[in-house]
Amino acid sequence: MTSTRATLQQVAERAGVSLASTSRALHGTGASKAMVERVRAAAAELGYSPDAVGRSLRMKKTFQIAFAVADIGNPVYVEMMRAIHGVLAPHGYRVVVMTTGDTTGSTADLVRSLNSGFVDGMVISPLRTDDRLIQEIQQAAVPVVVIGRALGDHGISSVSTDSAGGIGAAVRHLHAIGRRRVGFLNGPLDTTPGEARQRGFDAAVRAEGFAAERIEVEIAGDFTVAAGLEAARRLFARAPDGAGQLDAVVAANDLLAIGVIHAARELGLSVPQDVAVTGMDDIEIGRVFHPSLTSVSLGSTERGRAAAQLMLRLTEDPGQQAQQVAVGPALIVRKSTDGGAR
Amino acid sequence: MTSTRATLQQVAERAGVSLASTSRALHGTGASKAMVERVRAAAAELGYSPDAVGRSLRMKKTFQIAFAVADIGNPVYVEMMRAIHGVLAPHGYRVVVMTTGDTTGSTADLVRSLNSGFVDGMVISPLRTDDRLIQEIQQAAVPVVVIGRALGDHGISSVSTDSAGGIGAAVRHLHAIGRRRVGFLNGPLDTTPGEARQRGFDAAVRAEGFAAERIEVEIAGDFTVAAGLEAARRLFARAPDGAGQLDAVVAANDLLAIGVIHAARELGLSVPQDVAVTGMDDIEIGRVFHPSLTSVSLGSTERGRAAAQLMLRLTEDPGQQAQQVAVGPALIVRKSTDGGAR
Repeated sequence: MTSTRATLQQVAERAGVSLASTSRALHGTGASKAMVERVRAAAAELGYSPDAVGRSLRMKKTFQIAFAVADIGNPVYVEMMRAIHGVLAPHGYRVVVMTTGDTTGSTADLVRSLNSGFVDGMVISPLRTDDRLIQEIQQAAVPVVVIGRALGDHGISSVSTDSAGGIGAAVRHLHAIGRRRVGFLNGPLDTTPGEARQRGFDAAVRAEGFAAERIEVEIAGDFTVAAGLEAARRLFARAPDGAGQLDAVVAANDLLAIGVIHAARELGLSVPQDVAVTGMDDIEIGRVFHPSLTSVSLGSTERGRAAAQLMLRLTEDPGQQAQQVAVGPALIVRKSTDGGAR
Repeated sequence: MTSTRATLQQVAERAGVSLASTSRALHGTGASKAMVERVRAAAAELGYSPDAVGRSLRMKKTFQIAFAVADIGNPVYVEMMRAIHGVLAPHGYRVVVMTTGDTTGSTADLVRSLNSGFVDGMVISPLRTDDRLIQEIQQAAVPVVVIGRALGDHGISSVSTDSAGGIGAAVRHLHAIGRRRVGFLNGPLDTTPGEARQRGFDAAVRAEGFAAERIEVEIAGDFTVAAGLEAARRLFARAPDGAGQLDAVVAANDLLAIGVIHAARELGLSVPQDVAVTGMDDIEIGRVFHPSLTSVSLGSTERGRAAAQLMLRLTEDPGQQAQQVAVGPALIVRKSTDGGAR
């Protein structure tokens, strides 16, 4: 007779509250008195049985999904988090954010600790992905979705983008507005974004025919404003013919680009007249910055939303096949490059 | 013979790893094989007994501390989070961030859900504090420390600041550099910071003798750049004699101040020549903004650190008396007001 029994979902719908609230109310944890009464009334109406409560208890759902990132100080992750929350909250899930730092070891440890059962799943956006991390994800006690490298070959659900292609769009734009001496301010090359963006830059400057002696590359210690400012000072200082000779800088993300603009200003250079600057990620602060920042959007909101939808499906059916989603880049031209050719 | 038994802490020290890793290794969850061997060897050397393991298991420590804030998109909370992490990580704790939204109800629900035992304690920085939230904190299953209103009267450990006094410092500075027609862009008045900052503004303009007809106040929907931009447009539009008549704007935080500077620029106003702008919180982006932002630091790093230290003490001895810490404000003058008198 199991098929005629009401489900927790049906009780939640009848009570007009979330699945999580229903679960909490029936188990007597974290629900107001009014909520408990309302949910119990709905359960009674539907003949929701104690057996079913037992089954739900055995499921031990926490209604928490972790979002693990290297540095929540980067607004791009905040945008992803909001998008993930937007998809999961209506289903009764709470999103908890965990900062991993930038080592694969710490991320792998975090994935392993999922065994302790405080979340029902985890969305991670690791800066680096190695064999150990992949193995921990494959063996994880709950579903894991990765925002970053495409990991379909490893049977892992992932949401990827084409940041190499995005950097290419920035380089083509700078060439089109007449810039001929270009600097690239990248983050660490042993990170997933650093490697991809370097590859994109190298391919694009070749394709556009930039002269090798008119290209400068500098690597920041990480993907923050402070690291970008420091590296940009080095970049401008080591341009062979003085700072004035670089007429464009491609930064690997918006925070680095803000560092570049600040460093240019310290040297009395005008942006974009003396040096055009592009970023990547299209964060809000770049839009109100002065000058407003030309940037390559990698669809952080879309990627967050896609990851959350993959997660929802996996929490319902952990056994289903891994799925892959790809989100394309889009160049958004603003004042930091839109000062006309020189 | 209990007193001669080795403690978990002693095993951790002998193994040269964190308390959390030691606990995980001994309980067989989330530790590498090498780690398990190292910790077991240390336990064997010290004669750490199964009984002690039993006790530790019964403690059910999670080595996770939650940090719950209204909006992790505000960099001031990221700075607090880093400070909290800096204090807690060496003791083996992981910090998980939870976004509550801006209602007291959701924060109270979150505090109540602590019963489910996935964290050992919670640091919260609520925008609003009502009786229900205070009650949930008092009854919480694990220690709670509040960054915000001083709650010593309610027996709750808290870290407070003087944002009213901080706004006063900004108003005095603007008066001292010759500004006489001042706008105040505040956030919602029913929030703890909104109420305090309004109080500080009202007292300071009275004390400095600003003429009542030369004061304009506008309230933004929340404490974000987008809300600040929208409200600043209203503020400039409704200044009786046109936008040019406001020669200074005090913003209730740095994100709102960035919105004000953007709105001023839209109207062709120079900052600081036409209108001087001050913010509050001293976030990193304000320092590299153009013009760099005069701001009142409320010691976000110090407050985070103090809250984490209170938390550490409470996790060791939950029964100890509530403690209060107060961090004072400090005005930091930068280019957004430093353009000389007019």
